[in-house]
Amino acid sequence: MKRITIKEVANLTGLSIATVSYVLNGKGNISEDTQKLVHEAVSQLGYVPNYSARSLVNRKSNLIGVVIPQAQPGSTLMFENPFYSEILSSIEYTARKNGYHIMISGTNADEKYLQLAQQRNLNGIIIIGMYNSDSYAGLEKINIPLVLVDSYVDNHHFHTIKINDRYGGYIATRYLIERGHRKIAFLSGALHESSVNMQRLEGYYDALREYNIPGDERRILTGQINFDSGMRLAERMVDTLDVSAVFCTADILAIGVIKRLNSEKRVVPERISVIGFDNLNIAHYCIPGLTTVGQDVYKKGEAAVNAVLNHINHPENAKEEISLPVSIIERESVRTIA
Amino acid sequence: MKRITIKEVANLTGLSIATVSYVLNGKGNISEDTQKLVHEAVSQLGYVPNYSARSLVNRKSNLIGVVIPQAQPGSTLMFENPFYSEILSSIEYTARKNGYHIMISGTNADEKYLQLAQQRNLNGIIIIGMYNSDSYAGLEKINIPLVLVDSYVDNHHFHTIKINDRYGGYIATRYLIERGHRKIAFLSGALHESSVNMQRLEGYYDALREYNIPGDERRILTGQINFDSGMRLAERMVDTLDVSAVFCTADILAIGVIKRLNSEKRVVPERISVIGFDNLNIAHYCIPGLTTVGQDVYKKGEAAVNAVLNHINHPENAKEEISLPVSIIERESVRTIA
Repeated sequence: MKRITIKEVANLTGLSIATVSYVLNGKGNISEDTQKLVHEAVSQLGYVPNYSARSLVNRKSNLIGVVIPQAQPGSTLMFENPFYSEILSSIEYTARKNGYHIMISGTNADEKYLQLAQQRNLNGIIIIGMYNSDSYAGLEKINIPLVLVDSYVDNHHFHTIKINDRYGGYIATRYLIERGHRKIAFLSGALHESSVNMQRLEGYYDALREYNIPGDERRILTGQINFDSGMRLAERMVDTLDVSAVFCTADILAIGVIKRLNSEKRVVPERISVIGFDNLNIAHYCIPGLTTVGQDVYKKGEAAVNAVLNHINHPENAKEEISLPVSIIERESVRTIA
Repeated sequence: MKRITIKEVANLTGLSIATVSYVLNGKGNISEDTQKLVHEAVSQLGYVPNYSARSLVNRKSNLIGVVIPQAQPGSTLMFENPFYSEILSSIEYTARKNGYHIMISGTNADEKYLQLAQQRNLNGIIIIGMYNSDSYAGLEKINIPLVLVDSYVDNHHFHTIKINDRYGGYIATRYLIERGHRKIAFLSGALHESSVNMQRLEGYYDALREYNIPGDERRILTGQINFDSGMRLAERMVDTLDVSAVFCTADILAIGVIKRLNSEKRVVPERISVIGFDNLNIAHYCIPGLTTVGQDVYKKGEAAVNAVLNHINHPENAKEEISLPVSIIERESVRTIA
């Protein structure tokens, strides 16, 4: 299928390529008659503007990059935690509604990615869950709107979308305490300095302090944020700890815990209560239904795209800092004890 | 951050922009000395080639489009079925390893998408689960390698990656029959003419015929491929049918069935056996673990990307037609009856 080029539009109209290009990109001071002439020729010839060409002219690729850091280099496990697919679904939908497309990369937001972002003329970058320890030197030098989701990296060059993770950790733990639990384990992914997990741990301690319950470091178990790690941590927990409840900082961890504990006989919630974090679909799928700290993953993705679009339209505005609410979603995995 | 352009490389080397461009795109017959000169200047200046510019020259965008048709227009529910996120994870990983990126679109592969594919100079398109009833007129006219995953649309212009869905339906049903079941329900999404569901239904009938079990149309229940539909179909099934087992054509449907049947008391597998299809992660997460027809979703995604890459390197070759194996994955959701 031969492609109609801008040259043919120029030939048909008798205008220069530059003038046609100005009209198509809405630039320059072109008379209405000329504009009409160009648009008629475009529609007559069936000319489809080329993003690559437009991108060279006006740096508008209509492409937003989404970066999902990998736990391990070369990992295929971008979707080990369904949180990523849920937020990606929302980002894709919001971008599409606004005439943008998304390019996803399961990689770190390192120098190589920034080079790629320039090569592709990305109009925005959304990075999900970046830690302080990730290489992000140079990020602030890039002249592309940049949105960090779920990151406590402190930098006013970035837009940030998150929830109050510390408060989430606090209400999860308080919920267990109010139901009679005193011996509460904390199961989490790695506790990086600027990670959401670290914040949720702070909230856990906040609640213990409020109720004068002494903390016990042995009850803090860390692994990775995936199902298998949840199974392994559950095993370690029942083997070594005397606890009546556990707060898991991710639903996918909690699902692993319940699978391990309930496969032979029903331990959750009869002997051990479990509360999760995220309110993903799987929290609803499992039996017993998972009581969890609910966040609106859909809104989080939407807010991230909107931050990019707002920046494109008003680059002079201050960086957005959005914190979305959290609340307890009650299902059947927590029991009240005496 | 000011961007170094090809012009500055040309200035530094004393060569023309065209010559520098030839070297960078590996075209033309350029002497080794000149090539060396260009590469040294590129590295000295820190020049980053621009994909948009390269794309104009050699039509190489290194971008592969992945289309995930929506059940309903404007739907956000691209990831209603975790199958999509699992195959996307594999597609992203395989593309990344090979220096490609993926652009995902939750849309139909209609004329508008084809226009977009040209605008972006996509180097390949992977379409997942297209039905005959989808608008795909014009697809074969596009000069971009096109891979259909899980589609029975009959067209030699496309590469196709699928599994033997009919055989999968057959072994699922046979597995239940061999364990004493005679009254077997079939739960599925819409039975479009060229859909995998229709093929799996054929396989269901194949097994019934082999064992001289009369088919009963009332036992065929259809809804959508998602969790809520599984819950609703389970309710209809127990209200209106006398069955001892059910074959669900997707794990996500089976998970909904089990949730609905087991929430109050354990019905699966004690009173009703359930077998799924896909072997997604959730089949392993749930309690009881879901016995299912396993397909290698990872390999499916990998094969789709490889078909694109093979086409790019050898456009003269015949279209690929790959059928991946299926097998029963035994867990705890099926019981042997007398």
